[in-house]
Amino acid sequence: MTRPTTQVYAGVDIGGTTTQVVLCAPDLAVLARAEVPTPAAEGGQAMIDAALGALAGLLARRPARLLAVGVGAAGIVDTDAGRVLVASDSFHGWAGFEVTATIRGALGVPAYLDNDVNAFLRGEAAKGAVAGVPHVLGMTLGTGVGGALWLDGALYEGPHGAAGEIGHVPGFGDLSCTCGGRGHLETLASGRAIGRRYGERTGRAGLTAGAVAAAADAGDPDAAVVYEEAGAALARAILITAGLVDVTAYVVGGGVSRAWHLLEPAVRTALAAEPPVSGRPVSVVRARLGSDAVAVGAASRARDEIAPGTRVYEVGEPSLEP
Amino acid sequence: MTRPTTQVYAGVDIGGTTTQVVLCAPDLAVLARAEVPTPAAEGGQAMIDAALGALAGLLARRPARLLAVGVGAAGIVDTDAGRVLVASDSFHGWAGFEVTATIRGALGVPAYLDNDVNAFLRGEAAKGAVAGVPHVLGMTLGTGVGGALWLDGALYEGPHGAAGEIGHVPGFGDLSCTCGGRGHLETLASGRAIGRRYGERTGRAGLTAGAVAAAADAGDPDAAVVYEEAGAALARAILITAGLVDVTAYVVGGGVSRAWHLLEPAVRTALAAEPPVSGRPVSVVRARLGSDAVAVGAASRARDEIAPGTRVYEVGEPSLEP
Repeated sequence: MTRPTTQVYAGVDIGGTTTQVVLCAPDLAVLARAEVPTPAAEGGQAMIDAALGALAGLLARRPARLLAVGVGAAGIVDTDAGRVLVASDSFHGWAGFEVTATIRGALGVPAYLDNDVNAFLRGEAAKGAVAGVPHVLGMTLGTGVGGALWLDGALYEGPHGAAGEIGHVPGFGDLSCTCGGRGHLETLASGRAIGRRYGERTGRAGLTAGAVAAAADAGDPDAAVVYEEAGAALARAILITAGLVDVTAYVVGGGVSRAWHLLEPAVRTALAAEPPVSGRPVSVVRARLGSDAVAVGAASRARDEIAPGTRVYEVGEPSLEP
Repeated sequence: MTRPTTQVYAGVDIGGTTTQVVLCAPDLAVLARAEVPTPAAEGGQAMIDAALGALAGLLARRPARLLAVGVGAAGIVDTDAGRVLVASDSFHGWAGFEVTATIRGALGVPAYLDNDVNAFLRGEAAKGAVAGVPHVLGMTLGTGVGGALWLDGALYEGPHGAAGEIGHVPGFGDLSCTCGGRGHLETLASGRAIGRRYGERTGRAGLTAGAVAAAADAGDPDAAVVYEEAGAALARAILITAGLVDVTAYVVGGGVSRAWHLLEPAVRTALAAEPPVSGRPVSVVRARLGSDAVAVGAASRARDEIAPGTRVYEVGEPSLEP
């Protein structure tokens, strides 16, 4: 049997309920994907075993030479050590687990670990809605709100790895945030916030952001207002970021962004009423890679680490439809 | 007569009323300084002539070999072309004037132009209160509020030269700003805002920020509240910046910062009540170079342009007293 000559990178997105694995060509085209349940209660080894099992299945069906593996995981991550530092309570035995060392040991190829929001932005910047754009803020509107910053064609993690946290800075009203702060973007634009704020207006508690969007689509004015306020908060996040770091491109992902037809007009209206102080127009686009984004971004990190120079960025920013 | 062997850089700060010129040694120590009125109504040539006259006077008293000239000027500046693009109404014939070309033509040495707030931060980062600190936000609290960002040991101007404008992003209440926006830091922490807000509380209009500070020192509770609110707004600017770009060092200059004994406790109280989401402590210091800051920063730019590598930054951030 000859050695397969197709070279691939694997991307792994370890979420709280499912783990997504993709095989990517060197240009990050997704060649194959698999989804398995995340055994979050069974510890780090079980979680990595599940991911590696899915990866082995993909490689069995599509033989290829695996060059490296990238992993995206929720929580606070030590990218140098390849470990999760802080994970949510639903993960057992995950914080501190040697993610990259375990994968490297099992497969004999380099492995890299990223925070999932950073991986999301890597994916969208490498192959998604903002491909080739050198300066971008990425926002993920999920249960909470995540943020990541792309400056000069690379992830900007800041001196302590804490940059991009637009979901948790003040200036967005006065509601209490899950993080202990007040007036954060997350209190208005996360899935949890949208459900809760709709419940407070109507007495109908416990709806998902998707159900609130469906209500808005059916003409419910309270549901529409909740999404308008979320969109206006996104616009404020954009103005803050544009003013501070002169970024003009924004990509929005996460489950709440599925209601883009509700969010986008509100963002647009708010930005028209209050343009950035620089006068430069901004582009705000919905993420394009969907549930592949984190895994593709993790694969792009793996590729860029072992084959630097593969990335090609255009000079200047291609125009994006706002 | 032998050619003088002492090498110097000149820094020029062209303000609305006065022009400050300094001669700096290569380590940016100020060897001599002069201050002349800015002939702002007489046009760009007159303004540059006044600065060059002051510089010639300094060099006559202290012969030295001039290596380059840096200029800091208010307004929107094209640093590449060496021209001011937009100046305030008090300057006549200044926007569009060929600042660096005129100086180069007159003196035969390279000349560089910076926005004054950027030059302020260059000065403080090169030789002032945040010398050697690689990541800093600088804020100048003058008639308005200016901001500049220092990342990885260099000025971060952003893709369109508009980064650092923390004075004009939303999230600071709902007051109208001079720029046409609402709820900007400038509406709470500028000298103009402090005078106006004190007038609104007390009916005593037209006081300078310094007079309001004197009133606070004399026990006037309204004056104290106005400064407390300015300090709380500074803390919010710090939290936003820390969250978005992971900067933990802040330097505050401008006339309003003379009342540091009023501002600092308010900043400290607000940050203690609401720490940055990263958990990393931040350092907030008053600018140290006083009225030399812009001119020294302009000189540091000139030095760094013609003698790159002169700057030495420490690894990590030296601890600053908060």
